[in-house]
Amino acid sequence: MEFSERQARIVEIVKSSSPITGEQIAAKLDLTRATLRPDLTILTMAGILDARPRVGYFLKEQKESSPIMEQLRLLRVGDFKSLPISVRENISIYDAIVTMFTQNVGTLTVVGENQNLKGMVSRKDLLKSALGKTDLQQVPVSIIMTRMPNIIMTTADEPILDAARKLTLHQIDSLPVVEAFIDEKGEERYEVIGRFTKTNVAKIFVQIGTLGKR
Amino acid sequence: MEFSERQARIVEIVKSSSPITGEQIAAKLDLTRATLRPDLTILTMAGILDARPRVGYFLKEQKESSPIMEQLRLLRVGDFKSLPISVRENISIYDAIVTMFTQNVGTLTVVGENQNLKGMVSRKDLLKSALGKTDLQQVPVSIIMTRMPNIIMTTADEPILDAARKLTLHQIDSLPVVEAFIDEKGEERYEVIGRFTKTNVAKIFVQIGTLGKR
Repeated sequence: MEFSERQARIVEIVKSSSPITGEQIAAKLDLTRATLRPDLTILTMAGILDARPRVGYFLKEQKESSPIMEQLRLLRVGDFKSLPISVRENISIYDAIVTMFTQNVGTLTVVGENQNLKGMVSRKDLLKSALGKTDLQQVPVSIIMTRMPNIIMTTADEPILDAARKLTLHQIDSLPVVEAFIDEKGEERYEVIGRFTKTNVAKIFVQIGTLGKR
Repeated sequence: MEFSERQARIVEIVKSSSPITGEQIAAKLDLTRATLRPDLTILTMAGILDARPRVGYFLKEQKESSPIMEQLRLLRVGDFKSLPISVRENISIYDAIVTMFTQNVGTLTVVGENQNLKGMVSRKDLLKSALGKTDLQQVPVSIIMTRMPNIIMTTADEPILDAARKLTLHQIDSLPVVEAFIDEKGEERYEVIGRFTKTNVAKIFVQIGTLGKR
């Protein structure tokens, strides 16, 4: 359970003096009701608080986790991932940028034999190299890519919530979706089978949100 | 209500022969149960279908819209927006790229007097100009920015669901959050008061998802 500090204080207040109205909670925190609205909404959606009209907020009995959450955790990366767009590590930075535009993606996976993950290149990486004196046509993408083992990855069976948390926590736009395998030398490798991006998260959010409206 | 074609077919099947199990729906569509899982989960979360163990899926009575949706629609852009990072239109492309790195953002708003919105510049725009023969130090950002009236905007009171749909529909990473005003010549202008990005959407998604877990 990850509370913001303010959300934790709201839960404490409701615990000690429920039922309590939004206005009363706001007064105790020296904030306006409007400022508190998103926190109260999120705590209610997550099944932590419940609200009765004209009565106020109270802590929800914790018989089970909220149904929204149970459902959300059933959604897996493999069900929503996009196709990976991969290049080889000897491709020039220039050609990597061109590939990004022709394929309309923001991140490329750099792979070896058998789609074996070697690196990741983002628009940010490419832009940084364009800023310098680098000869974009000559320098290979391997020079600027993020390499193993510094790559944040996901797998097809990871819940999308956990993958989305990796994206926000590490401030990246895209995760490679991989399957681990052991190569002929007995070393662990990762075959790239997809990509999971902030765009995928936004689409899932919109899809869940839009279906209910009628 | 925006169904994918497959989701619409699932609803039709459930309508004509409920209760029906996931396996039976999959058989009618010539798909595996695993392939169907995300669609069934989303339709259930959105309050369109309901499922009873050992019985199967049936259409949910539509007394009201789903509680998830009602709650989601209460969340507004103004409660979750980030601070805008703005530059003037005579700044060089080079300095715009540097600003992006120092401020750690993916999109800049280009403004005139009174934070009046003139344009938007994304990493993609800057990368495209870096690919050409453009002198990044000499050419102003106004040459490559997306201009009014082609800018997709949002406002503080827009539901985040609608703003998220704009992001996915128009394939952009960031929306300027604006307030309309009338300038001294009587023309409508837009003051930039924030930015709303795919990162904001991913954070909201993670926050809602994580709070319920215990």
